[in-house]
Amino acid sequence: MIDYKVIEEKLGASIISDVLDGMGVRGQSMDTTIRPISDDMTVAGIAATMLMSDQFDYEKDTFEVQFKAIDALKPGEVLMVCSNGSDRAALWGELLTTAARYRGAKGVVIDGIARDIKLIREVGFPVFCRGINCISSKGRIVAIDHGCPVKIGGVMVYPGDLVVADLDGVVVVPGDKIEEVIEKALDVADRESKTRDELKNGMGLYDVYKKYGTV
Amino acid sequence: MIDYKVIEEKLGASIISDVLDGMGVRGQSMDTTIRPISDDMTVAGIAATMLMSDQFDYEKDTFEVQFKAIDALKPGEVLMVCSNGSDRAALWGELLTTAARYRGAKGVVIDGIARDIKLIREVGFPVFCRGINCISSKGRIVAIDHGCPVKIGGVMVYPGDLVVADLDGVVVVPGDKIEEVIEKALDVADRESKTRDELKNGMGLYDVYKKYGTV
Amino acid sequence: MIDYKVIEEKLGASIISDVLDGMGVRGQSMDTTIRPISDDMTVAGIAATMLMSDQFDYEKDTFEVQFKAIDALKPGEVLMVCSNGSDRAALWGELLTTAARYRGAKGVVIDGIARDIKLIREVGFPVFCRGINCISSKGRIVAIDHGCPVKIGGVMVYPGDLVVADLDGVVVVPGDKIEEVIEKALDVADRESKTRDELKNGMGLYDVYKKYGTV
Amino acid sequence: MIDYKVIEEKLGASIISDVLDGMGVRGQSMDTTIRPISDDMTVAGIAATMLMSDQFDYEKDTFEVQFKAIDALKPGEVLMVCSNGSDRAALWGELLTTAARYRGAKGVVIDGIARDIKLIREVGFPVFCRGINCISSKGRIVAIDHGCPVKIGGVMVYPGDLVVADLDGVVVVPGDKIEEVIEKALDVADRESKTRDELKNGMGLYDVYKKYGTV
Amino acid sequence: MIDYKVIEEKLGASIISDVLDGMGVRGQSMDTTIRPISDDMTVAGIAATMLMSDQFDYEKDTFEVQFKAIDALKPGEVLMVCSNGSDRAALWGELLTTAARYRGAKGVVIDGIARDIKLIREVGFPVFCRGINCISSKGRIVAIDHGCPVKIGGVMVYPGDLVVADLDGVVVVPGDKIEEVIEKALDVADRESKTRDELKNGMGLYDVYKKYGTV
Amino acid sequence: MIDYKVIEEKLGASIISDVLDGMGVRGQSMDTTIRPISDDMTVAGIAATMLMSDQFDYEKDTFEVQFKAIDALKPGEVLMVCSNGSDRAALWGELLTTAARYRGAKGVVIDGIARDIKLIREVGFPVFCRGINCISSKGRIVAIDHGCPVKIGGVMVYPGDLVVADLDGVVVVPGDKIEEVIEKALDVADRESKTRDELKNGMGLYDVYKKYGTV
Repeated sequence: MIDYKVIEEKLGASIISDVLDGMGVRGQSMDTTIRPISDDMTVAGIAATMLMSDQFDYEKDTFEVQFKAIDALKPGEVLMVCSNGSDRAALWGELLTTAARYRGAKGVVIDGIARDIKLIREVGFPVFCRGINCISSKGRIVAIDHGCPVKIGGVMVYPGDLVVADLDGVVVVPGDKIEEVIEKALDVADRESKTRDELKNGMGLYDVYKKYGTV
Repeated sequence: MIDYKVIEEKLGASIISDVLDGMGVRGQSMDTTIRPISDDMTVAGIAATMLMSDQFDYEKDTFEVQFKAIDALKPGEVLMVCSNGSDRAALWGELLTTAARYRGAKGVVIDGIARDIKLIREVGFPVFCRGINCISSKGRIVAIDHGCPVKIGGVMVYPGDLVVADLDGVVVVPGDKIEEVIEKALDVADRESKTRDELKNGMGLYDVYKKYGTV
Repeated sequence: MIDYKVIEEKLGASIISDVLDGMGVRGQSMDTTIRPISDDMTVAGIAATMLMSDQFDYEKDTFEVQFKAIDALKPGEVLMVCSNGSDRAALWGELLTTAARYRGAKGVVIDGIARDIKLIREVGFPVFCRGINCISSKGRIVAIDHGCPVKIGGVMVYPGDLVVADLDGVVVVPGDKIEEVIEKALDVADRESKTRDELKNGMGLYDVYKKYGTV
Repeated sequence: MIDYKVIEEKLGASIISDVLDGMGVRGQSMDTTIRPISDDMTVAGIAATMLMSDQFDYEKDTFEVQFKAIDALKPGEVLMVCSNGSDRAALWGELLTTAARYRGAKGVVIDGIARDIKLIREVGFPVFCRGINCISSKGRIVAIDHGCPVKIGGVMVYPGDLVVADLDGVVVVPGDKIEEVIEKALDVADRESKTRDELKNGMGLYDVYKKYGTV
Repeated sequence: MIDYKVIEEKLGASIISDVLDGMGVRGQSMDTTIRPISDDMTVAGIAATMLMSDQFDYEKDTFEVQFKAIDALKPGEVLMVCSNGSDRAALWGELLTTAARYRGAKGVVIDGIARDIKLIREVGFPVFCRGINCISSKGRIVAIDHGCPVKIGGVMVYPGDLVVADLDGVVVVPGDKIEEVIEKALDVADRESKTRDELKNGMGLYDVYKKYGTV
Repeated sequence: MIDYKVIEEKLGASIISDVLDGMGVRGQSMDTTIRPISDDMTVAGIAATMLMSDQFDYEKDTFEVQFKAIDALKPGEVLMVCSNGSDRAALWGELLTTAARYRGAKGVVIDGIARDIKLIREVGFPVFCRGINCISSKGRIVAIDHGCPVKIGGVMVYPGDLVVADLDGVVVVPGDKIEEVIEKALDVADRESKTRDELKNGMGLYDVYKKYGTV
């Protein structure tokens, strides 16, 4: 079983990203566009996915699939929402946060916009997104699928992947590599701490790198 | 008369934006590019406007119209500056802030750059802008009109409009709809609080939405 | 000799930028893309430079020149790294920070990406960059030269220039103008303080500007 | 009934755009991103619409709704496809062109990518789009609706609107204003020809503008 | 006196750009955004300048300064229009072309949008711009100055500079260096032709470069 | 042995791209930014690679590695140049074209800028690039490696890959899949021609797609 507490306290997005690099599993770390709405937000959990699209019929009920997907969230999950980078409206806010938290969801990563930032910060629910505005998604953005593969911040995400996100960014571990990655990451964390000590004592960067293989 | 205290404490950009949506008045909420220079900045006030443009004659006196417009600010006004998104230099800084505050202005929203961020934060004057650099606008950006319609963050703003801005963004209420919007917004705030309670008790999102019409 | 304490406490990027403007030395202040990773970061120091480039052979040792450049840093220097704006991976992190601090470097300004943000903030080492992600530069970005001219945030930087960076941005003073610029900046700081007092007492902006020449 | 031949021969996007401006109907002309794939392509017809979205399940049948929409095209229609600006794959090509032509469609305007450019040019079917690549939309872009409002190049388009497109761009006339716009456009065309003659004879621009109201 | 025929036939933007490089006069060649509206358009002439800005009062007369500037064009001049990259509307079209041609102007270079492309091509008047749409500048873009310094495609242009533009781009020769640049350019053209012959005979690039200093 | 004539005449970038899709080999087709400098340019050949970077020491000899790489080109090769999208200067021109042609190279694909467009068109040498300007790369862009993996238009390219480029774009076939891809592509071309005939006879798109599997 995954020990999320260990991940959130001892590991982090950068170490997990390095481990995947070392295994030759590339393209798993999101680009610079996906940022936490508060610097202290950290989350590790299993990916649940939703795919959304802009639409332009303001009279249409755009909430049905979206609400179904959120109501289906399970404890320990992180909702991963792809809207193909739409910055037209905020597809996440405080009321969705309240609903997701009740179901035990641990956070949300979206390649779009969020709002109600002050209220979400107050409850400390981790939200990673591309930007902020005050515009409702009602009639503007519609969920067209959930439980499907999505692409966020340049990374393909499948339901069941492990998502680790903090101030450094968001990394996605393929579902069948989770155990291996965590084990290796703990070892890297250990070696990095030795590297740090040597550097503090003045050893040259290249010598340290040759000795411990991390930097 | 407009009770700004009620707006700033009970309402906010997102609720105002929703109310305008509900009235079919669209395109009044700014895009993600206009952000507060400090997360706790909130402002509500009446729009005064200024239009600026890049220019390239460093010897030219570029301050005359700009200073006239700032010196003409009246208590309760928010200065709305359109420079067509110029990021060439900072068109707002601490000394302009000091002058605007003396005249009772409540804040400034610009689609350009600000500087003297530390000093402006110290006095707590709300500044919403597109970015920060340390370059003076002297000889670089010139005011070509004031009291005219402007476009900021994708929104047309007319003198006399109500501007409400906070961490979620900036929304502009047309001058002839201010009373109606505030009244409706207080009602939405009330219903949202009920929605929140139901969600906290585990009601499904779609059921709550059907019952209260907000989310 | 340069008194860095005076610069960091009494002066700042905006005043230095104004002084260079006044001397007709333009194009020395960086654009809005280069930002501190923490709002309280301030640095003044002498530029050391490094030029990097994306590369695509993951098996290649990309660290040799980079580590050599960092190991050669001298007390009082600020490392200026140009990677032509690459956002592909983080070319600066905590271990490089540890190495640079040991050598007495005062900060780093990069036109690329940083990571290990939480740890770097903890030691308070000033890092100015274009963004954040968790991806290692190993095999992705390679140093191709150091001690050479570079371009960062739109500004040409030469080894030996004075770099002053704070929340308002980053300004670069050509090596042969450092003394003159600091002297003039202290005078501008003095006049600005008088300008501020007059504005607080309600004098019009244009009158103040005519009287003190600053705003 | 609309005389398309008159529109294509005597009028054009620029004149239609001016007439809508004169009526105070703004926001009907597309921005610079939508271009013809051949400089000689001109089309006037009635809008049929389709809304598409990127999706990431390569195994999914993404063609069903798309083909249904194209097979439903009627003579004289111009297919207006909104994919929210996706440049991931070409959502239009030669075989779709062949199918659309058989049904009497007059052209297609898409805010995405086309391919098979050489073959489409050979049959002279007007295609206006944002770019070209050789990537199939199969498994990448899916139609989620048709006969709905769409937004293309910044313009809202409704089924039944008149679309006029040529080398100058694309303009959309609301369905209930078509007759009025065409009538006025013929008059403007007439006055422009007089304006031109005066200018050729050396009359000043401002005098000509005062006299004929066009320029 | 400048022999424009020689420039247009024997020289061209690339050679002029190289000569300025060789003289250490940098930053005189425009970036990739400024393109001819027809591949065969070539022009050499003396810069006349105009500065424009977006504005948002549709009722305002935006033509007065603009028409005055065009009516003041003199034979042999190239009109250089800076609108700070506005792509909101076409600030150049066929009627302005007709007026400019009557006064002997040789072409126009704008950092904005043009329209009436087909008609302008028919008369063969060289127009270099950033894009095309069919939207009138009336009420949208206003001239705020002329005969002033402007910045187009990254290059500062002053009245009296020599402008040379063709399919390769646009280069601006400072007014006091025109004679020297043309003389040197004729020499470079001569050496390039020798370089070409050697390369056709199979000489290595580096050897040719060492021998003739051009490539 | 590869029959380039067959590829250039019967196949093309779009069909090759579809075949790779069908084999599950994705990410091999370049994005919309890489375009031919003339619409009739078509090329198929084996990839030779070069990696370049911006640099800022104008006095430095930046030609040595670049010229070596070009002088080493072999008959049938297509030079693939990655400069990480630099649009600072033209890294390809007429004299390099002359040298490359002498060695039997068939074309060049660069993610940067070209110049001498008119002369290159005259000799009909296929150049695919991101844009055009007249600025020399001398002292601005330096080759840092050749014969290495590069990334162009979003696609990883290795020496020995097959490159097929035409008006629809550029596709890269991994070296060990060339024979298989060409064989399959000839079959797809055959089926597409049947699809086309059926569509011309009015068969519905979906029925044709079910029958032939192409569209």
